[in-house]
Amino acid sequence: MPRFGGPTTFARLPRGDEVSRWDVAILGVPFDSGTSYRPGARFGPAAVRMGSRLLRPYHPGLAVAPFDRQQVVDVGDVTCNPFDITVALEQIEAAAKSVLLKARSLIAIGGDHTIALPLLRALNRHSGPVALVHFDAHLDTWDTYFGAPFTHGTPFRRAAEEGLLLDGRSVHIGIRGPLYTERDLPDDTRLGFDVIPAAAYDDGGCQSVAQTIRSRVGSAPVYVSVDIDVLDPAHAPGTGTPEAGGLSSRELLGTLRALRGLPLVGGDVVEVAPAYDHAEITSLTAAHLVYEMLGLLAVTASPGASPERLTPQTVGI
Amino acid sequence: MPRFGGPTTFARLPRGDEVSRWDVAILGVPFDSGTSYRPGARFGPAAVRMGSRLLRPYHPGLAVAPFDRQQVVDVGDVTCNPFDITVALEQIEAAAKSVLLKARSLIAIGGDHTIALPLLRALNRHSGPVALVHFDAHLDTWDTYFGAPFTHGTPFRRAAEEGLLLDGRSVHIGIRGPLYTERDLPDDTRLGFDVIPAAAYDDGGCQSVAQTIRSRVGSAPVYVSVDIDVLDPAHAPGTGTPEAGGLSSRELLGTLRALRGLPLVGGDVVEVAPAYDHAEITSLTAAHLVYEMLGLLAVTASPGASPERLTPQTVGI
Amino acid sequence: MPRFGGPTTFARLPRGDEVSRWDVAILGVPFDSGTSYRPGARFGPAAVRMGSRLLRPYHPGLAVAPFDRQQVVDVGDVTCNPFDITVALEQIEAAAKSVLLKARSLIAIGGDHTIALPLLRALNRHSGPVALVHFDAHLDTWDTYFGAPFTHGTPFRRAAEEGLLLDGRSVHIGIRGPLYTERDLPDDTRLGFDVIPAAAYDDGGCQSVAQTIRSRVGSAPVYVSVDIDVLDPAHAPGTGTPEAGGLSSRELLGTLRALRGLPLVGGDVVEVAPAYDHAEITSLTAAHLVYEMLGLLAVTASPGASPERLTPQTVGI
Amino acid sequence: MPRFGGPTTFARLPRGDEVSRWDVAILGVPFDSGTSYRPGARFGPAAVRMGSRLLRPYHPGLAVAPFDRQQVVDVGDVTCNPFDITVALEQIEAAAKSVLLKARSLIAIGGDHTIALPLLRALNRHSGPVALVHFDAHLDTWDTYFGAPFTHGTPFRRAAEEGLLLDGRSVHIGIRGPLYTERDLPDDTRLGFDVIPAAAYDDGGCQSVAQTIRSRVGSAPVYVSVDIDVLDPAHAPGTGTPEAGGLSSRELLGTLRALRGLPLVGGDVVEVAPAYDHAEITSLTAAHLVYEMLGLLAVTASPGASPERLTPQTVGI
Amino acid sequence: MPRFGGPTTFARLPRGDEVSRWDVAILGVPFDSGTSYRPGARFGPAAVRMGSRLLRPYHPGLAVAPFDRQQVVDVGDVTCNPFDITVALEQIEAAAKSVLLKARSLIAIGGDHTIALPLLRALNRHSGPVALVHFDAHLDTWDTYFGAPFTHGTPFRRAAEEGLLLDGRSVHIGIRGPLYTERDLPDDTRLGFDVIPAAAYDDGGCQSVAQTIRSRVGSAPVYVSVDIDVLDPAHAPGTGTPEAGGLSSRELLGTLRALRGLPLVGGDVVEVAPAYDHAEITSLTAAHLVYEMLGLLAVTASPGASPERLTPQTVGI
Amino acid sequence: MPRFGGPTTFARLPRGDEVSRWDVAILGVPFDSGTSYRPGARFGPAAVRMGSRLLRPYHPGLAVAPFDRQQVVDVGDVTCNPFDITVALEQIEAAAKSVLLKARSLIAIGGDHTIALPLLRALNRHSGPVALVHFDAHLDTWDTYFGAPFTHGTPFRRAAEEGLLLDGRSVHIGIRGPLYTERDLPDDTRLGFDVIPAAAYDDGGCQSVAQTIRSRVGSAPVYVSVDIDVLDPAHAPGTGTPEAGGLSSRELLGTLRALRGLPLVGGDVVEVAPAYDHAEITSLTAAHLVYEMLGLLAVTASPGASPERLTPQTVGI
Repeated sequence: MPRFGGPTTFARLPRGDEVSRWDVAILGVPFDSGTSYRPGARFGPAAVRMGSRLLRPYHPGLAVAPFDRQQVVDVGDVTCNPFDITVALEQIEAAAKSVLLKARSLIAIGGDHTIALPLLRALNRHSGPVALVHFDAHLDTWDTYFGAPFTHGTPFRRAAEEGLLLDGRSVHIGIRGPLYTERDLPDDTRLGFDVIPAAAYDDGGCQSVAQTIRSRVGSAPVYVSVDIDVLDPAHAPGTGTPEAGGLSSRELLGTLRALRGLPLVGGDVVEVAPAYDHAEITSLTAAHLVYEMLGLLAVTASPGASPERLTPQTVGI
Repeated sequence: MPRFGGPTTFARLPRGDEVSRWDVAILGVPFDSGTSYRPGARFGPAAVRMGSRLLRPYHPGLAVAPFDRQQVVDVGDVTCNPFDITVALEQIEAAAKSVLLKARSLIAIGGDHTIALPLLRALNRHSGPVALVHFDAHLDTWDTYFGAPFTHGTPFRRAAEEGLLLDGRSVHIGIRGPLYTERDLPDDTRLGFDVIPAAAYDDGGCQSVAQTIRSRVGSAPVYVSVDIDVLDPAHAPGTGTPEAGGLSSRELLGTLRALRGLPLVGGDVVEVAPAYDHAEITSLTAAHLVYEMLGLLAVTASPGASPERLTPQTVGI
Repeated sequence: MPRFGGPTTFARLPRGDEVSRWDVAILGVPFDSGTSYRPGARFGPAAVRMGSRLLRPYHPGLAVAPFDRQQVVDVGDVTCNPFDITVALEQIEAAAKSVLLKARSLIAIGGDHTIALPLLRALNRHSGPVALVHFDAHLDTWDTYFGAPFTHGTPFRRAAEEGLLLDGRSVHIGIRGPLYTERDLPDDTRLGFDVIPAAAYDDGGCQSVAQTIRSRVGSAPVYVSVDIDVLDPAHAPGTGTPEAGGLSSRELLGTLRALRGLPLVGGDVVEVAPAYDHAEITSLTAAHLVYEMLGLLAVTASPGASPERLTPQTVGI
Repeated sequence: MPRFGGPTTFARLPRGDEVSRWDVAILGVPFDSGTSYRPGARFGPAAVRMGSRLLRPYHPGLAVAPFDRQQVVDVGDVTCNPFDITVALEQIEAAAKSVLLKARSLIAIGGDHTIALPLLRALNRHSGPVALVHFDAHLDTWDTYFGAPFTHGTPFRRAAEEGLLLDGRSVHIGIRGPLYTERDLPDDTRLGFDVIPAAAYDDGGCQSVAQTIRSRVGSAPVYVSVDIDVLDPAHAPGTGTPEAGGLSSRELLGTLRALRGLPLVGGDVVEVAPAYDHAEITSLTAAHLVYEMLGLLAVTASPGASPERLTPQTVGI
Repeated sequence: MPRFGGPTTFARLPRGDEVSRWDVAILGVPFDSGTSYRPGARFGPAAVRMGSRLLRPYHPGLAVAPFDRQQVVDVGDVTCNPFDITVALEQIEAAAKSVLLKARSLIAIGGDHTIALPLLRALNRHSGPVALVHFDAHLDTWDTYFGAPFTHGTPFRRAAEEGLLLDGRSVHIGIRGPLYTERDLPDDTRLGFDVIPAAAYDDGGCQSVAQTIRSRVGSAPVYVSVDIDVLDPAHAPGTGTPEAGGLSSRELLGTLRALRGLPLVGGDVVEVAPAYDHAEITSLTAAHLVYEMLGLLAVTASPGASPERLTPQTVGI
Repeated sequence: MPRFGGPTTFARLPRGDEVSRWDVAILGVPFDSGTSYRPGARFGPAAVRMGSRLLRPYHPGLAVAPFDRQQVVDVGDVTCNPFDITVALEQIEAAAKSVLLKARSLIAIGGDHTIALPLLRALNRHSGPVALVHFDAHLDTWDTYFGAPFTHGTPFRRAAEEGLLLDGRSVHIGIRGPLYTERDLPDDTRLGFDVIPAAAYDDGGCQSVAQTIRSRVGSAPVYVSVDIDVLDPAHAPGTGTPEAGGLSSRELLGTLRALRGLPLVGGDVVEVAPAYDHAEITSLTAAHLVYEMLGLLAVTASPGASPERLTPQTVGI
């Protein structure tokens, strides 16, 4: 089947209902009611799946075939209530818990960054606190917006407060742009985060940044959260709060690749807002980021049974 | 000042803080958290104001100069909480009430259609129930979505339930497209609405439709609510729930114009989602619709004192 | 599940592998190698399915619930070889035959207009020759392009030559624009077609055109083929050979609706090229056209057993 | 040669330097320094030529082959100074005069509407005053903008003042939208123009409008000037001062076609601003309008010698 | 007020008429009649203000709150005659002089690069000649275009000739792309400019480039002029004469930031042409550049009285 | 003539029929029937010529005037059959041979990458095997797609098999993204290619990469083939199989420039698909790449007679 037709699961992976074993599950989270500026990330999961159609099976940079070493499945989208943030967070957490009953790891496709909180809550129940490796233009550790504690600008303050993150192991990468006050950075530090600003890429590039990340996380289990706005608007126009001066897609992919061997336990790629994208450049890069995470998981996967299926069942026509 | 520069109030009208008298107030309502599909109408007020920059002072179709017969002001935007629909509805209602303490009429620029409810509530307090002349592809009289009673699909059921509309005087125009069940139309009728489907324009055009509207509303005070998706997607791509088979902009403007003389008491133009617009065609048509309403108001305005100001104060450079 | 997430089958219908009974099958045909100008209709099936997400279950214009009266399924896409037209035609014909072994009717989503030929061949095998009701800006009865007999400009000459069409029962609607020579129209007549030009809509509108179509086809089994370029470029920019002066989406939908009761046996909607679309206006109109055909089929369907499923199975998360 | 490649002359016509006889010349006028709002019509000639690539040789509506009855040539673009309106007007007038030394008729592709004045001046020298048939959303008979007498809003006041138009023979069609003052229309009448507003198409359509035009112009030599913004923004987003409520492309083409037999002496299609276009819908419609004028010229052309060439010379590879 | 609604001044700063003290004034200059290729920078000021809505108050890179250390105001747009370059230059110069009677510094938002000349003239009257730090793909020291001495390709030749620049202190950064002749660079040198080509960023990056700039300007008062086309077209598609091979937004922002402490006296950001932009990536980067200049001004500002206002007055609704 | 009007040859060069001497010929190859994903490169030649309009005569980076040292001509487009790949390859090869009878060198503008094979075949006949310097995200040495041996993913396997490339002299630059299997890279090596992955630019940049290329090719005659998707999607959205993590336009132009002095014998720039481009950023970069190759050819050209013409003949108006 040519890649412009056929299945619409992520990278043409089998659906969750087609295989009995799930090693890694891809879960769409079409929720953007926590967005403070340009909405539309609710269409992110569909767009990233479309952007994943060109992904091929072998990752030469990591020398691994991510779909061969582990059974990867696309389990579809969570039903999220667009009109009630609290209800939606519960729905997302419940769905993630349900997936993690069956799958070793979960990679989520957002949706806005609000969704990271229920994902971390579910993961915490599943495997305890994690080191957060957080790529973003913004800290996302603000306290409230318009009185709301759960928005796309606050998930990691909540996560830190709730003990979902390991002490002294988390780091933001790619931070840039103006802040609300001079207290934002000290507050963030007090919550237990380190910051690697976007400008750090000017000195030493992605290898150097990756080394700093490795020093920070040590051997802790790692959750990687990628807000697509960590990329420069040139590389990711399709997002809600773009910020000039960001990373190139090569820098970001290179950084992830250089984390090879870290014990990744889950991750997300969020804030893809397709209405602002052009020619799918944002959503296909997001798809590559998910693929990169799948590669990292494959590298550390214990070689087990072969996957049951590599692609979804299709009608025999 | 060339129209590509200078003030950004609607049609370069004076701001509310510049004049003591307000006859008609234009109010932006940047709220779209009640949207069920493509969000983004929160950027509607800014876009419609931009689209209004080419509006000139004299309306030849109605033979009236809308800004000369009445003091029209742009009172800016309501602060609406994007994260809590209930709070936002209260904010919008309070703002509208506050405006109506001072202005005879209010024209709102949305925002999604959820905002019509608090506007009708405020208007009801100000001048009692009204006949609703509602242009839309959709009935907007559904009961709940995902359990939520206040969304962009439900304002007129709530309005009918709350007694904000006059019995037997309201009408939907431009309805088309699939419904949820065969009970939708009978339910709508039971709530007190008539329906003029989009296909009615095939027989007799806008004059005939306007005559039907006039028969329906009689001499009741009229509130005109225009969901921009009443237009065909060709004419209004920049909206959230487009529906094929709609009106042309000439048909819609012609219908409004043919309502000349009806006692308009307020109105809104909603659901302009600029991220989906192209070359401002949706937002400039929305601006024309607001202008048309201002013309209708001017035609029935009692000739009073001349406006204090026609344009905003600018720095003298 | 909100309509911006979840299944990606047409109108969220069940997949073919989920139900044992198929009354009507939707088949994607991602093939555009027969295109003479702007290619890209290979992405049509995916785009039209995306554009179908807002379709609701009840059709008020036809007073029928198309998915209740018959088991409608989405059987996915045909694998078509993009590099060899002959091979692809065989693949499409074989797939259609296979579907028609099981389904009473088939609605195809193109793809370019080349695909109509193998569809008509399969249908002919299944139920004999048909009356063709063909909406298009172009005749599509040219002989060859660059020596190629099978392209998107030639399917209906081939169909006529092969006896796939009933004598004197077929008609083109919406024809306009320049032709190659003054012989094109007489040649087309000689092949057995009537022409209703786009300008015919100026006199009497869609009811009048529909009446002419009905006179032409009589009680013959009808195949409806809609080239989306029958619409004006304002209504369908996302296509390959746009032609000014076309139909509005209301005129086209109204014409189809006015064919209520004709014995439809199949149909296609072709030439949607998403790279040229804007805000999905072309693909959502195409989805409405498919829905309209499903309504026509439902109206004439013998009331049978209820559908097994109305929506696809989803993972229980 | 497939139409997506090869020559870039209008409709693949021969260049002016390739044939000795010019019956009708197509002239590009890339000038937009008279624009008051969205500029960019300087790219109009290139875009309209691109949009003409699909034009075929036979016009069924007029039953004529426009390139067979007369030698049509594309004489390229005028060099217009973008920084000095006065100099540019002289350049355009000189170029048009030079073309009219050789060609019987001239069709210009703008450029903004300022260019109509030097074209009418040249034509006046060539064949005396004309009846102006002017399709536009705007009157273009204003006096000055920012003190400038020669802009895209003033050409026809200047033309009337200079005696370039026949008394009582000229007419604007498609006028709509707000005016500067209530005096605009009486002033326009005093200058000798009639107005057929866009709303006139609601009663009787293009045949009725064409009849009114015919009554107005009688047997006078006719110059047709089409500002593309006479079309609704849905049909012509690619223009500088769009105005809601306009004509469909079918209405405009139908009106022109219904002028069959009038003694056309020249014409222009102006105000195509490609930066605001989408999928070439504006520029291809503009190309159809030029083609329609060529058809009108062919219908009244005295049958003469056959054209020397139908297409440009190409390198033999 | 959410940032998608409310005031439209730059970064929600107070208007000039709202405060008595102006330390730094932002001035829009909507003029693009000096453009030689893609016009549209006349819409630049409105677009850059829209792109500034996400700017927050604290600049972590410079450790300063630009709006707290100085009273920054948005004084609106200059009225510029679009039809007469000479008149427009006088209007711009007069406006700038008028602003500088009250404000210590002026940051202009263009408009095309022609506007730099009248700005430098006004600044010269105010504080004498300056060192020009000029970011651009092009030298802008050509002599004339089509005989015109004042266009967007000539401002700095004129400025040098008029003695507005300090001897041996000015520098172009980011130059690349083909030139008219081999004499362009020597001519530029003779006028007193140094050139740092875009390729210089390959060796040492922004810190190294900033050091070269510092060496060049010494302790002279600095005027920073940023033509947005110094950025690569990927980062700034919304401009008139794009040139491949440019800077990333991180390189440009990093260079400006590294000029911390230089005695900036004014600046401009020009050539933003929104019609060619996508998802506001050009205009929001331009807004960041203005913010960066405000930060540089704040760093060297003598601590004075607190600002009177931080945001514009809004109607109390 | 302003650059927004006038001739549409590449960089306004003379047409092939205007000069007797051809040193370097530019040839458009509008063929994309070998495309496996997003088609549309058939419009590449027209778009790249449009994107070349701003190119000026002097190349400061190479200190050469490419059009002065050699007679460069634009010989137009090859007629390629879009419906039969085999026929099209023959047409392209024949055209290239025909051009090379007259011109010393040929630069082709694609079209998809399939066209490189017939170009290399023609070149081989003309001057023997070459060293291939191939910039691309993909190896393009796959064997077949859907059974087809000649597609845009296979030209260089075929070229290697046919002996068109010198042993051990060819190199791919910019490779990245997932592969089909782990055997792809060893297979590629076995065919005689070296690989410089995109990530190599992280270490040493374009100078270092250019040095590696030089080591590889030695003094062999060089053919440079640039698939525009070697650029990051941010820099080249207008292409068919975009791949995240690519080169910037500065890196690519810098690499080509650093090949100064190599004996270039021909080249191509392929895979520009304008329907996916924005604001011409892809096509103007492609035009710069062609210009860069013309510069490389000029540097090594033996100084001969001056060009006969620098620009095309235009009608004297």
